Amino acid sequence: MENSKNRKMIIGLTSGNGYGFQPGAWRTPGVDPKSYTSYDARVRQAQAAERGKFQFIFLPDGPFTDDSSLLETEAPNFNLDVMMTLAAVARETKRIGLVATGSTTFNAPYTLAKQFKALDIMSHGRAGWNAITSTSNDVAAIYGQTIPSSRDRYGRAHEVVQLVQAFWGSWGKDAWVHDQKSGRFAKHQEIATVSLKGNYVNARGTLYIPPSEQGQPIVFHAGGSPNAHEFAGRFANVVIGAAFTIEDSIQQRNAFRESAKKYGRDPDEIKFIAGMMTTIVKDRRTALDRRLQLMGHLLPQRVAYLQQMLGIRLDGNDLNEPLSQAQLEAARPSPYDPRSANALKIAKEGWSLKDIIAHGIIDYHPSIVGPGIEAADHMQAWFEAGACDGFWISPDILDDGIDAFVDEVVPILQQRGLFHEDYEGTTLREHIGAPEQYGIDPRV
Amino acid sequence: MENSKNRKMIIGLTSGNGYGFQPGAWRTPGVDPKSYTSYDARVRQAQAAERGKFQFIFLPDGPFTDDSSLLETEAPNFNLDVMMTLAAVARETKRIGLVATGSTTFNAPYTLAKQFKALDIMSHGRAGWNAITSTSNDVAAIYGQTIPSSRDRYGRAHEVVQLVQAFWGSWGKDAWVHDQKSGRFAKHQEIATVSLKGNYVNARGTLYIPPSEQGQPIVFHAGGSPNAHEFAGRFANVVIGAAFTIEDSIQQRNAFRESAKKYGRDPDEIKFIAGMMTTIVKDRRTALDRRLQLMGHLLPQRVAYLQQMLGIRLDGNDLNEPLSQAQLEAARPSPYDPRSANALKIAKEGWSLKDIIAHGIIDYHPSIVGPGIEAADHMQAWFEAGACDGFWISPDILDDGIDAFVDEVVPILQQRGLFHEDYEGTTLREHIGAPEQYGIDPRV
Repeated sequence: MENSKNRKMIIGLTSGNGYGFQPGAWRTPGVDPKSYTSYDARVRQAQAAERGKFQFIFLPDGPFTDDSSLLETEAPNFNLDVMMTLAAVARETKRIGLVATGSTTFNAPYTLAKQFKALDIMSHGRAGWNAITSTSNDVAAIYGQTIPSSRDRYGRAHEVVQLVQAFWGSWGKDAWVHDQKSGRFAKHQEIATVSLKGNYVNARGTLYIPPSEQGQPIVFHAGGSPNAHEFAGRFANVVIGAAFTIEDSIQQRNAFRESAKKYGRDPDEIKFIAGMMTTIVKDRRTALDRRLQLMGHLLPQRVAYLQQMLGIRLDGNDLNEPLSQAQLEAARPSPYDPRSANALKIAKEGWSLKDIIAHGIIDYHPSIVGPGIEAADHMQAWFEAGACDGFWISPDILDDGIDAFVDEVVPILQQRGLFHEDYEGTTLREHIGAPEQYGIDPRV
Repeated sequence: MENSKNRKMIIGLTSGNGYGFQPGAWRTPGVDPKSYTSYDARVRQAQAAERGKFQFIFLPDGPFTDDSSLLETEAPNFNLDVMMTLAAVARETKRIGLVATGSTTFNAPYTLAKQFKALDIMSHGRAGWNAITSTSNDVAAIYGQTIPSSRDRYGRAHEVVQLVQAFWGSWGKDAWVHDQKSGRFAKHQEIATVSLKGNYVNARGTLYIPPSEQGQPIVFHAGGSPNAHEFAGRFANVVIGAAFTIEDSIQQRNAFRESAKKYGRDPDEIKFIAGMMTTIVKDRRTALDRRLQLMGHLLPQRVAYLQQMLGIRLDGNDLNEPLSQAQLEAARPSPYDPRSANALKIAKEGWSLKDIIAHGIIDYHPSIVGPGIEAADHMQAWFEAGACDGFWISPDILDDGIDAFVDEVVPILQQRGLFHEDYEGTTLREHIGAPEQYGIDPRV
């Protein structure tokens, strides 16, 4: 399967606060500093990704929980409201899949079912629900609650997904007749009342929404624990992954695939999508300079952190110098940070201290800082090694970073036969090759 | 105040399932039978109301709770999802206010605050929240809960509104700097953490949404009990009212105004909007025929109900005959149905039994079935008597019923100086003359 010639990668775009994923994105000349509240900007960015045939756009969510003093210089991490944003995007795009995070920990199953199914209807079958559990005490507090144990969070998550999927199927697939001549609006015998008394959630009722063009939304999951493997293996079609090395990514992907098998599913039904951060510019030097312009003010704290990753002393006054031979020989990648080996590899290439950091070695995902072909090579290597089924991209600056990826990376991937030339169909289910599903999966 | 020459009425449109407010609307030739799931239809209808300078569109909400066998011939009552619908409408209209129901009984304050403020941002200051309490056991069951007592429902409602308004103001009015040159994104000292431990709800956190063009959304309320007077008098700027007679409407409006005074507010800050159902056609006969075409299949059950309203026997086989002199003399309007006196008045005009019913005498609000001038006369009489500050309109069929009202009623009201020629400003707050407010009102 891994080496099938027809296997194509899936690419998604993530969109956080509307500016981009490098510090300082919001204040870059040419960026609208009000993008945070601009639905025009959100729509434009989704349209850019659609031009590149991205299979989906992904909106993470969570209250901004850090110390608000960070807001002096940086924007909050998330959308004002992910569902309202996707509603706007749904009306102003045609093909791209629309995925948002909705926590199973603090939302009522009925509310989740209704919102995502409505999105699925208004987008004509392009909705995906990233069903996660909340782990932050700050998130809990905003709902007047506390964070349950991991066991209870996932216990509830399993019940919530089952209820949501039951609601999604409560208006039977053929129940809506709407025949003006006969006057028959619906077959009421095919409209079911959902009823579940779980250990964590109860609900009894009906969701009056007929099937969308893809039947019902697709379930995504983001998480890496054994509980996450279990949950995603049972319910998810896509995993929003996070891995720093090919080896780690292969291991994670296999864990999800094994879990899917355990639940009687074809492991190809679950796609592991690796994260990737991008600064795509014509050459490496210009790309590094762009990074330095964005995060230059953070160099002192990044140098301090790099010291820990490499286990050596670094001098913040020598930003323009490469590490000395002695430093390189003394360096030991920290076993506590999986990014450390890559940091040392970059350092050994002879880049200056600030350029090492500008390579994005402390980013949340592997970073490509350079021309499009470097991104394409990275993606091909991971994909062909079976490390992932695709990538979700976090551009440095959304306004021009999506276009750079679309213009400089996508054509190479297409030439190499790794990425589709156009959307296969009209629904997200078709884009990612997820099997038909409606209501609760009878296998579960 | 009541007789001020400059006083203009407020007009809103309600939009339920997308078809209209008479049974059979969905199956009328020319109506798209898939309007229930059509966001195009919702947008088109809102645009029609905006053409008529309506101050707002109002989307009631609630799960469809009746016996699903009704769905054999009729559509559910509500939108797929009111907020997703208004998100679509917000992007494709310019001026009209956007109001939806959000229950205080089963939603988390943070969720309500976030969704309505996001709508306020995306509509550039046109959002209104109809804050209600839920009373239906079926609604409770879908959230896995039971309906609290009236006292507890309103106790919780008071806390929820205060929390929502506190969240709305938690990002201070001038906190968002977004100055690219200085690199200052926000004044973090002006970003407050909301913290409330109530008897019914708790929350601690911050909503990271800056002010909209109107500051924050406006609060509406729908209800008629002493608890509703109390709640709306304290918090609401608009009451979605229901009254069948001028006298009743005056009394209700005064109750809300008195309650506002009790809370130290100017009673003009609260607008009482009366309901009205419409079939606007060039003449009464054609209008009655349109009604009969819509609800003709329901005549037998309506005749049975009219018997109770008038306290006399009626013969369902004599649909084409007026009531006899003996029947009219024996008729006694039921004290249990405030519509009965009007039903008898129509009967005494000599209409046939089916035409009496076609006048909408058993509708949920006063019905106008006739030419535009009859609607204008009704509205002028109520408005000038101080019975209301405006009307919310439920057209028989949305697709052409809104246009009929806009073309046939609005110009007459404008000629009479009763309705504005154009929007006064760009925000809902300006449209209805609501005072500035941001965060929790310091008077409360």
